[in-house]
Amino acid sequence: MSWKRSERLIDMTNYLLNHPKSLIPLTFFSERYDAAKSSISEDIAILKDTFELQGIGKLVTIPGAAGGVKYFVKVNDEQVKPFIEELCQLFASPDRLLPGGYLYMADIVGDPKIMDRVGRVFASRFSNQQIDAVMTVATKGIPLAYATARYLNVPVVIVRKDNKITEGSTVSINYVSGSSKRIQSMLLAKRSLQEGSRVLIVDDFMKAGGTINGMISLLEEFNASFAGIAVLVEAEDIENRLVDQYISMVKLSNVDINEKKIEVQQGNYFDTLEAE
Amino acid sequence: MSWKRSERLIDMTNYLLNHPKSLIPLTFFSERYDAAKSSISEDIAILKDTFELQGIGKLVTIPGAAGGVKYFVKVNDEQVKPFIEELCQLFASPDRLLPGGYLYMADIVGDPKIMDRVGRVFASRFSNQQIDAVMTVATKGIPLAYATARYLNVPVVIVRKDNKITEGSTVSINYVSGSSKRIQSMLLAKRSLQEGSRVLIVDDFMKAGGTINGMISLLEEFNASFAGIAVLVEAEDIENRLVDQYISMVKLSNVDINEKKIEVQQGNYFDTLEAE
Repeated sequence: MSWKRSERLIDMTNYLLNHPKSLIPLTFFSERYDAAKSSISEDIAILKDTFELQGIGKLVTIPGAAGGVKYFVKVNDEQVKPFIEELCQLFASPDRLLPGGYLYMADIVGDPKIMDRVGRVFASRFSNQQIDAVMTVATKGIPLAYATARYLNVPVVIVRKDNKITEGSTVSINYVSGSSKRIQSMLLAKRSLQEGSRVLIVDDFMKAGGTINGMISLLEEFNASFAGIAVLVEAEDIENRLVDQYISMVKLSNVDINEKKIEVQQGNYFDTLEAE
Repeated sequence: MSWKRSERLIDMTNYLLNHPKSLIPLTFFSERYDAAKSSISEDIAILKDTFELQGIGKLVTIPGAAGGVKYFVKVNDEQVKPFIEELCQLFASPDRLLPGGYLYMADIVGDPKIMDRVGRVFASRFSNQQIDAVMTVATKGIPLAYATARYLNVPVVIVRKDNKITEGSTVSINYVSGSSKRIQSMLLAKRSLQEGSRVLIVDDFMKAGGTINGMISLLEEFNASFAGIAVLVEAEDIENRLVDQYISMVKLSNVDINEKKIEVQQGNYFDTLEAE
């Protein structure tokens, strides 16, 4: 069959969106659509402009025989700003305060659309870096880790705090929970992370950072290094934060259980952007 | 600015893919692109044909003042068949057998691309049904539940077997594990599921079905009903399967730990299709 440009553009958009950070040779498209390479190059030029203009992402073309086109998620600051405001409003509801100072956020973490949008922002932020895996700790960080990893085209590695691991031998470390000061342990299956990997740590919530610190220690056991830390929410007013390099979307402060009040402001996303 | 058709088609493809099962009024697009409704209708006709031809999905147009266009994920059987074969090969490696008869599958469950593709198939299979939420049990079912829920445009509800829930009051039930015959309990936060919801249960692995049976009991406590059960892998040769209505992608049988052998065949996906 013969493909029209309009049909090619629709199919290529879908294909590229489903293959982020993958090099796709132009011959792949020219064979798929039975079209000349020059036509495919024109298609890609149109896609590239529209992707950038609409904040869909960045298309990078690599010339030469081993070349092709690569799609990177790229979210503009103008898209992130209203999204962070939206998140702040969502978190600001006093209904979220639970006994013990916990925050109800199962509805936010349970919404695949929100997780996908946060994952896009995280992936966009780290799109220029070499990242081999996204790491998180069970349970609530998992959706965000997958959303981020899908856009970065890398696997997810899940650390556990219980020992209900049925994935063979494990590496375990002890860490000190920053808030409760208790010694706890976390485990990772040996087979699940390759030596020397560069890892992005993602979590839903960070208080003192003990859990994230634990994950960094665990990385050392695998001779792996960490490429960055990205959290959805951080709780402010912690005397000694154990982790200082991270990005956050939302910041909570002055949680007052008796008064049922909570202060929500934007996280350090834009501050850290300026510092880069 | 004035939009060309090619630019509109690229942007509309991206927009529709990001908003599955959502009714988008034609006026939304005509305002977005400053274009006549008749042009938008032509755009949608082109999108509809290409989406169907390429197995991207189904576009349904609803006429009238309250109408618009809705994108449904729809995977063709010709796409599912080779994918199931691919999964079977992935599972067939003898390296996966662990002491105790467990199967190493962290690499498969940890691959966002595979999870996304399985989620597409599950969502496509249940796209015609009323589904209000996807339910799974922590931990390994979570990625698949999100991948499915994203395409169905519904929230994910996560049941836990431990009591480390910090989401307020919970409902708990006891259930009998089908394999070990032990009594265990599972919990769900009260706020996380609305009464009367129709729920799709998704999990990575099903042996005797005790866990899934437990989730069905839990649904009753919430006056919710179940719309279906979808699992990635089922283990065959169970004397008394506790659950008989489900779809599976892969079926394991004759797991022989001493001989390090495992038989992998396709799940019941296509059998249940014929029965519908």
